[in-house]
Amino acid sequence: MGLDGVRRLSPVPSKGKAVVGQSGGPTVVINQSLVGIVQEAARLGSFDALWGARHGVQGVLSESFVDLTGRSKAELETVARTPCAALGSVRKKPTSEECLQMFEVFRRNDVRAFFYIGGNDSAETAHLVSRAAADAKYEMRVFHVPKTIDNDLLVTDHCPGYGSAARFVALAIQGDNEDNRSLAGIKVDVVMGRNAGFLTAASVLGRRRPEDGPHLVYVPEGDFARERFARDVAEAQKAFGRCLIAVSEGIHGPDGRPIGASDEKDTHGNVQLSGSGALGDLLAGWIRQDVQASAGKKLRVRADTFGYLQRSFPGVISETDAAEAREVGREAVRASALQPSGSIALRRLPGGAYACETFVTPLETVAKKTRSLDRAWIAPAGNHIQESFRDYALPLTDPLPEMGRL
Amino acid sequence: MGLDGVRRLSPVPSKGKAVVGQSGGPTVVINQSLVGIVQEAARLGSFDALWGARHGVQGVLSESFVDLTGRSKAELETVARTPCAALGSVRKKPTSEECLQMFEVFRRNDVRAFFYIGGNDSAETAHLVSRAAADAKYEMRVFHVPKTIDNDLLVTDHCPGYGSAARFVALAIQGDNEDNRSLAGIKVDVVMGRNAGFLTAASVLGRRRPEDGPHLVYVPEGDFARERFARDVAEAQKAFGRCLIAVSEGIHGPDGRPIGASDEKDTHGNVQLSGSGALGDLLAGWIRQDVQASAGKKLRVRADTFGYLQRSFPGVISETDAAEAREVGREAVRASALQPSGSIALRRLPGGAYACETFVTPLETVAKKTRSLDRAWIAPAGNHIQESFRDYALPLTDPLPEMGRL
Repeated sequence: MGLDGVRRLSPVPSKGKAVVGQSGGPTVVINQSLVGIVQEAARLGSFDALWGARHGVQGVLSESFVDLTGRSKAELETVARTPCAALGSVRKKPTSEECLQMFEVFRRNDVRAFFYIGGNDSAETAHLVSRAAADAKYEMRVFHVPKTIDNDLLVTDHCPGYGSAARFVALAIQGDNEDNRSLAGIKVDVVMGRNAGFLTAASVLGRRRPEDGPHLVYVPEGDFARERFARDVAEAQKAFGRCLIAVSEGIHGPDGRPIGASDEKDTHGNVQLSGSGALGDLLAGWIRQDVQASAGKKLRVRADTFGYLQRSFPGVISETDAAEAREVGREAVRASALQPSGSIALRRLPGGAYACETFVTPLETVAKKTRSLDRAWIAPAGNHIQESFRDYALPLTDPLPEMGRL
Repeated sequence: MGLDGVRRLSPVPSKGKAVVGQSGGPTVVINQSLVGIVQEAARLGSFDALWGARHGVQGVLSESFVDLTGRSKAELETVARTPCAALGSVRKKPTSEECLQMFEVFRRNDVRAFFYIGGNDSAETAHLVSRAAADAKYEMRVFHVPKTIDNDLLVTDHCPGYGSAARFVALAIQGDNEDNRSLAGIKVDVVMGRNAGFLTAASVLGRRRPEDGPHLVYVPEGDFARERFARDVAEAQKAFGRCLIAVSEGIHGPDGRPIGASDEKDTHGNVQLSGSGALGDLLAGWIRQDVQASAGKKLRVRADTFGYLQRSFPGVISETDAAEAREVGREAVRASALQPSGSIALRRLPGGAYACETFVTPLETVAKKTRSLDRAWIAPAGNHIQESFRDYALPLTDPLPEMGRL
């Protein structure tokens, strides 16, 4: 009977217990959402108890729970400031059989609400769980709480987790631009983002002067061609005497095949792109081969892959991002009193100063789908990001430092 | 006549001009030392003018100078907070002919003092310049101002630049440890440090609990053997269900040959180790081959190379490090009024609370030589760092955050 069946349930269910889980790649503010759920549930007395599932659906299946009821404010605030999933995360899409097992666990323990913090894969899991609950005629509230550094969820203006990751990337590029000015050369920086270029686009946020890097930016929204890349790099090198390049790990050729990716896949069928320096080293090798001849002098070519620091580095969290991540958690608890399921989203309010409000969107509008960088934000030549992207992204990162010049 | 000749010069030279340059790999506080020199020279009225050489000795040779006299406090403070060499850096050891050319430039412009901010290569350059000045009977003060993220200078307690780089590494490992707890696996993090393991050792500074990573640490002070590495990783994986490994880019086999290094060398004859993910990917491959068989389940193995972020990331500068970097610059100007040459060093004061004072050591005690991690700080098995290292290094990084647990 699907989701419609759930919608016909009474608007306020019996209290029962609630379970919260965290899923997918971590962010530095994913625990803000967890703590938002814990604090709002305690404030409203929403449930008889709130349990945390260790490693997401895996913890539900194995009945590995931690009681989150009655935690002190000091403990929760320390957890909120800690990067990555305090409950443990998982990359697992439950099968329909596993969903039935989950309901057995929920029913046996009188669990009436499930909050799942994660990306589009996690929204899909929440959607499957919600449908299975409806099929089993088990009264249950199921809410997806958004988190992803990739910023690739539909409906929402942006995803909690993105602002801090974007701040990390912007600062890293600001620093590396100074490094590249100090010792001139050609530098490739590989940024996370499998399908969406939002995080790579954040590389431009700290630029203040026309000569500031990144001088070239490549996102997965376009096709990547070795020949054009070589031409772009040679031109930038000629113009600036150096070249700083930000490139997404998800760049691909016209055939759609990722450039430099390994063949390892996770259980969602996603190819492994992170946790390796292969793409950066490949591109550096191409530059040495293709650009060296026209350069005249010996080129200094280096590559860095920013890697897991983008989603886990504890030092430069955006306060805006942290506050919004807390708020989507709180909103999920409030919404669970009013409707059977949904995903929490953010809507930017009109007016000069940046502000967002939360709202609820159906799970199926978010599940499995991915959002891409707007075409208008990508330079027509496909090798840079337009200034207009700054208006969108800069409010999310908090202000970036000024770099001094002599 | 060498250095002795310089020592027979009058203790206070005619004012003349001064030149300051920056050299070698950048740090995030190298401009603090520059600003310290500029501010102290202005305060004391030490010179008729203070010029900055663009890209170190290269700028002297090409007479590419920028006048640093009369800069505003606001401009200087912004430069001081900016990572990497504001004047530009260089990796060049001048030949004796080039030294003569430099003196021609200095003499023509009445330059009577030269301050060179850099590592042991730069101290060597300063030493060569000082000797050439003495040989030419040209009255000139030459001071080396220490900077290096590697912390590998002799005499000084530690090097300005190290504290901030150590803070970056400690925070990065704290975050990656949370990431590794969230999604268990085997993770290799490659840390800078060609000959000295100080920066890799800083990976332990954020550890609070026995189960916290890094679970294994490899520094260049010992030999690295693939077989023992595989055994260590398998044991840690068994004990913790995951394994976080910090490894120096400078690890080498018993034959002294760097593991995973390319054949590219700079003009000092140093092999290129940074700016590539090759070592991390090689070690990850070894783990997949050597540890997989005994693991029972499919291992998730990833590698990150922290790269240039360690020396350029603007977000997490240690205030202690920044203040000391400023102070060694100031001290160089004061010392130049009292003696003909030297390298500024830091001495830790006895007593409970951390404090350092500056002093001057002869250039030849620092030039070309490198310091290694004390043997007492390395675990006897050669795969971890002792607790005693924290007493040495933690005061330099400023306090690290607490990671919350549920």
